[in-house]
Amino acid sequence: MSGYRTIVVLGGGSWGTALALTAARAGREAILWARDADVVAAIRSRQQNPAYLPSITFDEVLEATTDLAAVSRADAVLLVTPAQTTRSMLAAIRPHLKPGTPVVLCAKGIERGTGKLLTEILEDELPQAHPAVLSGPSFAEDVARGLPTAVTVAARDGAVADALAQALAAPSFRPYASTDLVGVQVGGALKNVLAIACGAVVGRRLGASAQAALTARGFAELSRLGAAMGARPETLTGLSGLGDLVLTCSSPQSRNFSFGLHLGEGRPVGDLVTLGGKLAEGVHTARIAVELGRRHKVSLPICETVAAVLDGTLTVDDALTALMSRPLKREAEQS
Amino acid sequence: MSGYRTIVVLGGGSWGTALALTAARAGREAILWARDADVVAAIRSRQQNPAYLPSITFDEVLEATTDLAAVSRADAVLLVTPAQTTRSMLAAIRPHLKPGTPVVLCAKGIERGTGKLLTEILEDELPQAHPAVLSGPSFAEDVARGLPTAVTVAARDGAVADALAQALAAPSFRPYASTDLVGVQVGGALKNVLAIACGAVVGRRLGASAQAALTARGFAELSRLGAAMGARPETLTGLSGLGDLVLTCSSPQSRNFSFGLHLGEGRPVGDLVTLGGKLAEGVHTARIAVELGRRHKVSLPICETVAAVLDGTLTVDDALTALMSRPLKREAEQS
Repeated sequence: MSGYRTIVVLGGGSWGTALALTAARAGREAILWARDADVVAAIRSRQQNPAYLPSITFDEVLEATTDLAAVSRADAVLLVTPAQTTRSMLAAIRPHLKPGTPVVLCAKGIERGTGKLLTEILEDELPQAHPAVLSGPSFAEDVARGLPTAVTVAARDGAVADALAQALAAPSFRPYASTDLVGVQVGGALKNVLAIACGAVVGRRLGASAQAALTARGFAELSRLGAAMGARPETLTGLSGLGDLVLTCSSPQSRNFSFGLHLGEGRPVGDLVTLGGKLAEGVHTARIAVELGRRHKVSLPICETVAAVLDGTLTVDDALTALMSRPLKREAEQS
Repeated sequence: MSGYRTIVVLGGGSWGTALALTAARAGREAILWARDADVVAAIRSRQQNPAYLPSITFDEVLEATTDLAAVSRADAVLLVTPAQTTRSMLAAIRPHLKPGTPVVLCAKGIERGTGKLLTEILEDELPQAHPAVLSGPSFAEDVARGLPTAVTVAARDGAVADALAQALAAPSFRPYASTDLVGVQVGGALKNVLAIACGAVVGRRLGASAQAALTARGFAELSRLGAAMGARPETLTGLSGLGDLVLTCSSPQSRNFSFGLHLGEGRPVGDLVTLGGKLAEGVHTARIAVELGRRHKVSLPICETVAAVLDGTLTVDDALTALMSRPLKREAEQS
């Protein structure tokens, strides 16, 4: 039995709501913090989050609040706000967090400007917390509906990882413990960039064979950067690496894949970026990934191509031609 | 420039026809042998193969014949008949084949009864031929339409692999040379079994997250058996391994995925097997894979589950429950 009785989930979007439901199903006291008072009101009065999970009404008991002071009750915190808000959110919860509480980072990305992993931001902002991450192939709606899902939960301390996995486990939600914080985060961040490229291939109607070949080459790219950064091979081929890549590179339910799909269909980058609503995280991560590749001396041709398209220095057509008609090298020598 | 001027493709199905078109596009003299005189007649008179590629009329020049003696003109042979016919086909072409001709095995499977890879059959039947294999994420229709596709071409002799890749390369069809015959074949054979499991998950409407998690675990299974049999890691993560797995595990265009889809929807195994038409190759390979796993002391839980369902010793529901609710181990310890 896990010692984490009360789980505070920060973020009232679809993924935060789904994870709060999961915690409740696992027998935890689940408290969901949301910035938006309308979300909190709908959860309290109607057991719904109509803005983010419109088709779902749940039976689970969730406490909802707009008051960050709820963090003081947490035995473990799940941070589920967008990756680029991580630093400000961590600073905001600092006064409320009990020392030694695990903070599980559930967003996927790398900080703009610094190129830092989210756990590195956590170490900057909350050195007294236990750093942890949760990642894997999991659409919020699948999880909210109770469809079977498996994810990786990593913490530096294996006992903390095991306890978090136990605390969140339910018949339909299987968290597997790991201690590879770097591996889990590199996979989660890079797959968003690769999904933009796969989406563009599908948007341009190049076929499922091309999409699969690009997914495999994307995995090679993710593996090279991961290995250079110290990730373990079994993490990269596991749920948070390959599993999440496969999901994100194949489904319009993914915001990143969908962004690429529109690019491939001929929508200008500017339109997509300024369209309002939430921006696909891979748009931020593409340029950072290119920079990380340079720093670690690793070739990342797909990420470089995506970044060039986003920067306006390469057209989508030229990008796809470049990706699809590389010179014929031996397979083992591919980069 | 490649020395292989004349390519004889054996097999008038969709994949054989697509590969013959590819050879023609690459500037080769392409000769397609088909058992079925109607197929040969349609190709000769209408530039079509209405039985197998119904929506395609091609401009390329293909010579079509029902006479296996055409093999005597081959500088390279592509064998594209079903995996379980490999031995009889090789015996049949023996009198016609020039010594030292590369024979490229393009079917995916393992021989029933012997558990042999197709190149091992080739060594039994035609020791004077150069053994080669072609495999990768490639739906015949995508290839026939000229959509961009990348595959692996492996031969024991690297120079032969390079020359074959050169001979078949066209702007839309990129063959990458390899010398890892075992790796390419293990990936191609096992993915058919794993696709049955993924199809069942989708047929039972368990969601895209579950499908992606199973694909990642399937890759782990494929990698374990491949490694035990001597495959190289870069082959397993490459086009013929991961690339083909991703394609086959995600699309109803795959006969194996589609077989699993029907199983998941509740169709009895017996109905599917006796329905007529071509049987999904994974049905044969499942039991052989389990046997290979035992021989090489490798755990293959997904293949074992598929084999048990096909043998009638496990229901589809029990199989899916078993696959989706494994005990919570550390990710690195998963089997």
